[in-house]
Amino acid sequence: MFKIRLLVSALSLAGSMSVMAAEALPTTAPAPADNPTTAEKVALGKMLYHDPRLSSSGTVSCASCHNTMLGGEDNRGGSVGVGGQVGGRSAPTVWNAAFNKVQFWDGRAASLEEQAAGPVTNPIEMGMKSWNEVVKRLKSIEGYQQAFEKAFGKDSISKDTATKAIAAYERTLITPNSAFDRYVKGDKSAMTEQQVRGMNKAVELGCTGCHSGPAFNGPGTFQKFPVNKNGYFEAQYGLSDDKGRAEDTGKKEDEHLWKVPTLRNVALTAPYFHNGKVKTLEKAVWLMGKLQLDKDLSDEDVADIVAFLNALTGEFPKQEMPRLPGMPGRTFN
Amino acid sequence: MFKIRLLVSALSLAGSMSVMAAEALPTTAPAPADNPTTAEKVALGKMLYHDPRLSSSGTVSCASCHNTMLGGEDNRGGSVGVGGQVGGRSAPTVWNAAFNKVQFWDGRAASLEEQAAGPVTNPIEMGMKSWNEVVKRLKSIEGYQQAFEKAFGKDSISKDTATKAIAAYERTLITPNSAFDRYVKGDKSAMTEQQVRGMNKAVELGCTGCHSGPAFNGPGTFQKFPVNKNGYFEAQYGLSDDKGRAEDTGKKEDEHLWKVPTLRNVALTAPYFHNGKVKTLEKAVWLMGKLQLDKDLSDEDVADIVAFLNALTGEFPKQEMPRLPGMPGRTFN
Repeated sequence: MFKIRLLVSALSLAGSMSVMAAEALPTTAPAPADNPTTAEKVALGKMLYHDPRLSSSGTVSCASCHNTMLGGEDNRGGSVGVGGQVGGRSAPTVWNAAFNKVQFWDGRAASLEEQAAGPVTNPIEMGMKSWNEVVKRLKSIEGYQQAFEKAFGKDSISKDTATKAIAAYERTLITPNSAFDRYVKGDKSAMTEQQVRGMNKAVELGCTGCHSGPAFNGPGTFQKFPVNKNGYFEAQYGLSDDKGRAEDTGKKEDEHLWKVPTLRNVALTAPYFHNGKVKTLEKAVWLMGKLQLDKDLSDEDVADIVAFLNALTGEFPKQEMPRLPGMPGRTFN
Repeated sequence: MFKIRLLVSALSLAGSMSVMAAEALPTTAPAPADNPTTAEKVALGKMLYHDPRLSSSGTVSCASCHNTMLGGEDNRGGSVGVGGQVGGRSAPTVWNAAFNKVQFWDGRAASLEEQAAGPVTNPIEMGMKSWNEVVKRLKSIEGYQQAFEKAFGKDSISKDTATKAIAAYERTLITPNSAFDRYVKGDKSAMTEQQVRGMNKAVELGCTGCHSGPAFNGPGTFQKFPVNKNGYFEAQYGLSDDKGRAEDTGKKEDEHLWKVPTLRNVALTAPYFHNGKVKTLEKAVWLMGKLQLDKDLSDEDVADIVAFLNALTGEFPKQEMPRLPGMPGRTFN
């Protein structure tokens, strides 16, 4: 709490407008040195991302749970993988994931590339036995041989290239030009009075202690949640049932640490929190006040902040539907 | 068999080329008088078709089983609906479905409009309790209110308009300009020698008795399958377990009658037949010879016909991905 309070004071001194003004969403995301973005990789990655044949049943693609036609996820508490299995964490949005410092709710992947490798072989998500099996399947599809050749050179199908292509595609999934972005770029009519009020309250209350920067997911990387444990809300939402980062690291000090999620397009990603147990943005904002800031937000505060969060819904780029390469005369298994 | 043999004779007399030459795929499909195709309906229909929120779980859209990024289906035997339930019939392709005289494997829907209403409330497919529930959900999404208004006028969300929009979109899913189409329009280099040989064999053997016309699904509507019941293949593939049209009508004379499926893009729609039990096109062609024509096709005949069937894979129109309207701050249930 100390850190948050300090930051709020700093922000208050600096004046909320000017602090916010520096933070419009970039329109491109930097790529790692070993995976520069190319049009061929993006085209291939888009195919792989939308291909349900990357799952054991042939029914679940990356897009099934991280839907690029919607807010980049599935509007469900737990996502549904192969065989109708339901996961324990709510799918984070793929939109602007390029601006996350780490990936997954518990931050266990350091990059989009690393993240992309996970769900494919997760038994309750896409359920492939191994990446060897994935690579074998992809190699058997002539159109993929060609698309990988264009992106990475001859005979290049591998876990490494497939996940690089998916990451390259994901780096293009950016939603600039929200009402907030237009506002901070000088169009003072872009946000309503209520949205401006909500923005100022978000700064004053301390929300921006964790949720600032272009994607409203920094300056830090991890944050404890809930900070203020509350038996009543635990019984209702079970927010502490999952130990977060500690489930991956096994370390006591990582218990209940979570990657700070972006607030970009947050209005489109109900239900909320890592377990998706909170159905509305109003309730989520109110609970954040209670559990993180130890504050009882009034209905008016909540409404103002929700109005502001709606100003973070960006413009979704037009995308051509990928054509997935066929397997003439046969099926995927 | 009598009818088929007669037709083969007629076709042989007429000369296979000239008979085939009349049958290139049209590039537009006629719409019924009460549902003229408009750009607004198509745009709305495309959204609805790809929206998983039309299912109880929010995970299954029309496109889940009739994938427009692939061959218009899911390359599975039985499709997977809500809760991981697996259906008993293999999803037919949506590509060129506009040229089917009836819809569903058993032809129980007379139009695309009627078909579109079915899966949404089928408990093992999309699992909505009722169309009232669907309409209620759509009405709660502002973006749909607007899209329906553009397509059908103010306050127009209903089962009738939703299914009309989906059908209007489906009428645009046409794949012209296959190698076969280019061949019959005069480009004699469009098909290989083997494909031409396969085409002539398909006519001579009698395949075109049931599979002719622009979509290779007529002139009739229904056909018995299998014609020649065979205990050995029954044990392997169970093709007679499902009584087809009779399951809908309850009539003895409809037993094992099936809609004659299009052969357009058939190379992309493995596995084959109503129950999807036959995995490869080679095996499917050979079995059709055996079960429908009482003929033992040689490996060469099968290879030639399969080569020809590959010439029926058309050009898939480029499509922009639909943006599905959001539900700011809340989820679909």
